[in-house]
This record gives sequence, C-alpha cells and structure tokens, in this order.
Amino acid sequence: MTADRTIRLAHGNGGRFMRELIRDVFEVHLRNPDLDVAADAAPLATFDGIPYVTSDGFTVQPLEFPGGDIGSLAINGTINDLAVAGAIPQYLTLSAIIEEGFEVAQLDRIVASAGQAARESGARVVAGDTKVVPSGQGGGLYLVTTGVGYRNSARELGLSQVQAGDLIIASGPLGDHGAAVILAREEFGLEGDLRSDCGPVLELTQAVSEYEGVRFMRDPTRGGVATVANEIARATSCEVRLRELKLPIRDAVRSVCEILGFEPYYLASEGRVIAVVSPEQAVDVTAAWRSFENGRNAEIVGEIVAGPPRVVLETRVSGWRILDELEDDPLPRIC
Amino acid sequence: MTADRTIRLAHGNGGRFMRELIRDVFEVHLRNPDLDVAADAAPLATFDGIPYVTSDGFTVQPLEFPGGDIGSLAINGTINDLAVAGAIPQYLTLSAIIEEGFEVAQLDRIVASAGQAARESGARVVAGDTKVVPSGQGGGLYLVTTGVGYRNSARELGLSQVQAGDLIIASGPLGDHGAAVILAREEFGLEGDLRSDCGPVLELTQAVSEYEGVRFMRDPTRGGVATVANEIARATSCEVRLRELKLPIRDAVRSVCEILGFEPYYLASEGRVIAVVSPEQAVDVTAAWRSFENGRNAEIVGEIVAGPPRVVLETRVSGWRILDELEDDPLPRIC
Repeated sequence: MTADRTIRLAHGNGGRFMRELIRDVFEVHLRNPDLDVAADAAPLATFDGIPYVTSDGFTVQPLEFPGGDIGSLAINGTINDLAVAGAIPQYLTLSAIIEEGFEVAQLDRIVASAGQAARESGARVVAGDTKVVPSGQGGGLYLVTTGVGYRNSARELGLSQVQAGDLIIASGPLGDHGAAVILAREEFGLEGDLRSDCGPVLELTQAVSEYEGVRFMRDPTRGGVATVANEIARATSCEVRLRELKLPIRDAVRSVCEILGFEPYYLASEGRVIAVVSPEQAVDVTAAWRSFENGRNAEIVGEIVAGPPRVVLETRVSGWRILDELEDDPLPRIC
Repeated sequence: MTADRTIRLAHGNGGRFMRELIRDVFEVHLRNPDLDVAADAAPLATFDGIPYVTSDGFTVQPLEFPGGDIGSLAINGTINDLAVAGAIPQYLTLSAIIEEGFEVAQLDRIVASAGQAARESGARVVAGDTKVVPSGQGGGLYLVTTGVGYRNSARELGLSQVQAGDLIIASGPLGDHGAAVILAREEFGLEGDLRSDCGPVLELTQAVSEYEGVRFMRDPTRGGVATVANEIARATSCEVRLRELKLPIRDAVRSVCEILGFEPYYLASEGRVIAVVSPEQAVDVTAAWRSFENGRNAEIVGEIVAGPPRVVLETRVSGWRILDELEDDPLPRIC
C-alpha cells in the first residue's frame, strides 16, 4: 500500500503520488478484466437490451457504520437504482473526492468494501476518478457512482403506470439503515445492535419485474417510505394509504425514533424495495419476494385509492393521520 | 427559482425543498426529452457502435473563472475524455455535492453553464443527483459527471499502440486553464486577461480518430503535457522528447509561471488534445486540426524515441533537461 499514512494534496496532482494511490488502493480492490486505470474512457460490451444509466452521490456520516460503509453503500445504492427500474447492472464508475489528511488505511477498507459489493452484484467497475480537496473542505470522503445496465423487456415500469386500486408492497423492515447510521453517530450517545440493511435488491426486482401487474418499484432511500408514498401521490393525484400495523418496522428502529422524536417512515432503507402492484398480482409478488432471504418479511403495506393527492397513515388505533412531504430537515443527515 | 437565497440542509432531504431545487434549477437548465428527474434510472437509445463510459470529479477553486466555471468544466471534461478515446458522447449524468450556505443564484449560473455546454456538445444529461453537506464540509460545490458514448470503429487507440518513431502533436496553446484559474485566485493578487481554454475537443478528435497513423490521444488536464508525456514514457519504455521551441505556450502563461515559479508544462489545459501519430501522418493530422478554429495553432511538439523511459525537454538554447513525473505538489490545486 502507498507509503503515506494520510492523504496529501499531492495524491490528487496527476503525478506519482496519485498513480501509486490508484494502483495500490483502487486498482487492487476493484480489479477486473474491464478495468484499465490508464484509460480516459472504457469500452463496454454491446448491450443485449435497452441500456439504462443512473448516478448517485454518497456523503454519509459516519463513513463506516454497523452493516456497511460508504463504499458498499455507493455500490449498492447505484445497483439498486438500476434494479428498481427493472435493469440488470453491468458496469459501474466510482469517483472519489478525498479530503486532505484522510487516513489511507480507512480509504483502503472502504474501497475494499466497494470492491466486494461490486463483485457480489456481478457488475464491474470500469472507470473512476480521484480528487483530493484541502483539509476542511470535505467530509473525509465523498463517493459518486454511476451505473450502466440493460433491460431485456420494454414493459413500462414507472409512476405513470400506477392507478387507483393498486397495492403497495414493502420487501422488508424499513428504516434500518437510517436508524443504524444515527446510532453510529457519537453525538447522540446511543448504542444498539441495529445494522444497516445496506445491500443489493437485484434478486427481488428481477424476480418480479416481468409480472404484468408490477407498475413501479423504488428503493426507499432518502426520505424513506413516506417520501416514496408522497411521490406516488403527487404523480398519480391519488391518495396513498399506508397501514401502520402492516409496515414492517423493527422495535429497535421504533425505539430510536421515540427517543429522538423522529418518524420512522421517513428513515432511509438501503436494501429494500417498495413496489406498486395490481391487486390481482400483489399476493404473487409478496410470495415471490418471501421466497428470498432478503424478502422473507415482505408485506402488503398499503394501497392507492381515488382521493386527494396525499399520504394517509392508518394508525393502530383505527384513526389516521397525514404523512406530509418532508419540509425543513426533521432528521440528521443520513445519506 | 426556489425561494431560498442559500442552500439549506433541507435541500438534500428528499422532500419539498429538494424537489423544488431540482425542478427550479437542474431541470430548467438541463431539460431535454430524455431527462426525467422523477426516475431512478434513465433508459437510453440502443448504441450504434461500441459503448464507452468515463467518469470525472470536479473540485476547482474558484468555481467561476475567466473562460468557464465548474459547470462548463464538468461537462467538457467528460465530453473530452470520451472524445480522446475516439468516442462520440451521447449521454451524461451530473451529480452535485453542494455545501450548506451556498448561494442559489451562483448554483443557478453554474448549472445554466453546464446545460449550455451539454447542448453544445450534442450530449444529453439524462440522470443526476444532488446531495447537501453541512457548512464547512465542502468547497461550495463539487460536481461529478459521467459520460456514455459510442464508437463506430474497432481501431485500437491507446498507449499500447504507441511506438518509437511516432510524433507528438498538441492541438493548441497549453496551460491556459491552469494559469487562468491561478490568476483568478485572490490569494495571489495577480490580474491578467488570460482565459481558460475550457471547451470541447470533439471536432478535433473526430476529424482524425480514423486516421491509420493516430495511435493515442489524451487531453492534458491534471499535470499538463508533462504528465501525459510521462505516462507515454512509462507505458512504452521509450524516451519522450518535447521541444520547448515548438510547445505552444502563451506569453501570458509563461509570465504567470515565472512570477510564481511554476513549470508551464505541468499546467492543465481543458480544451486541448495531445495526439501520438505515426511520422507518415503527423503532418496530415496537424493540417486537419489547423482547419478548425480550435486547432489553428496545432504543432508537432515532440517525438518518441528508443531510449530510457523518461521525458526530455529540448530547450531553446540547444540543451535539454528532464521533465519528471510530479512528486509532491508544486502547483496550487487547479482542477
């Protein structure tokens, strides 16, 4: 590994320090037959279907947390954005913005974690970039990943396909990532054994993306299931009803939220899917997901109904309340 | 435009503030038929040739400088990385990491500039992301762009094609970007009328990429022509000779370098190409480039010779000296 213990501005200058950092950290962990760190742009195999592209930035604090780190998060986040569009991820790019003074050993751990997540996804990192910013102008490490994949089907998936009567399915417990990251912050002085759900959802999305009744899928990251529900309400001008009793939220996540005064429905997940499915196929989709370890707690959690465009939570005690679109920041930054 | 004058953390929370920022700034300036800001991943048209992908991060300070800004730089930098690989840029993604407190008006100017650069390139921004980091953890604005393009030819271009006897061509004056950015920094208290060369090189690369004799092209960004030359020397185990009298460097760039004690050959350009070409076709390539406004000062500036892998600058006074790979940072950070 590069001889320096911490990142210096010279690691970003295009010269020897940068070359050695790329060789000793990025190339080691991301190595694959399609990666040529000396190339300006990487040639790809021709796609078998419709190509898809997505891009996402990652600025989570802390950089490492129970169940994941910014490296695995950056790979899985982009994998999942392709997956919920029905696409199979094939190529990834990884750009790092590193703060002067950052520990090389921590960078090494994080890039190793990214490399492992990429290998598990079946997608290859084929291009990337590193920049070093002066001390005090970064959060240690920011990552931006872009994913390119393909889809063999032209079946339309998207908010425009959603209609009144459709049901909403969650693939598993919601908000684990958000709660785990909050717990990992020293500022709160809380401890627990919650782990981020950070992981790929590709097997879940691929299992059902060709079901006729699947209208739309989204991973409930920033803003959680309540934000996905608000996006659906706004796009369809329908009411979205969520059932508190059905929404799978771990007791530990509820506890964190109670202590800190957050709504769990706005907490991010990083390894879950929300799907909107026709009533005829909702049970099939739920059953299909439950056959996977990562979907064994899948539940039908709500429905789309004709009505004012808003999100209503039907509470345990047979009442209801509105889950509004987020306004000013009610949550610590967790993504 | 969004009602706030400055960016708040809430602009990154997934809720209303973020939606309005994306709608009022990013969507306005980047609008095109392929951009759907509500989608997780964007479908692309099938490619006519071999797809290429590249990614690059931008952390320049100051964010706006004579001749460009971080927005036009981010688009053109990625366009150019595809262009020098012989590819035609088709799709772009733009991810922004914005610091809390950043002025919305400046963000608007920069995104407008990015949008204009994208339109001029013929490539479309199809996906993106925004993150907001707390005040003191960013340099105002960082951008990461990824480009996807295609190439109709399978002719190999790359360092592996370079051989002893080949000539080196520069498409125009070198180091303008680096010098302009340094001048734009208040810390140096210098003024001048130098402008960054920030711009696309696609017409230059497309004009010659199918020439049999063109072995390799690269845009001399971080580390300048001296760094590209060192990359060639390392990859080929040949000596790279550059001629000081032929290297096109403006007097104003030389002056800045003399005052501040920099080598101009390490200064970044953001709208130039260095090509390695067979001796038989070097004159043709130079002539082809000179037919473009952006290439009218193209020059054969050096050659590859059998010898120790190093870069030699033949000086005006018939002597020579080594241009080493950059070690510790001899330059202020300019990219």
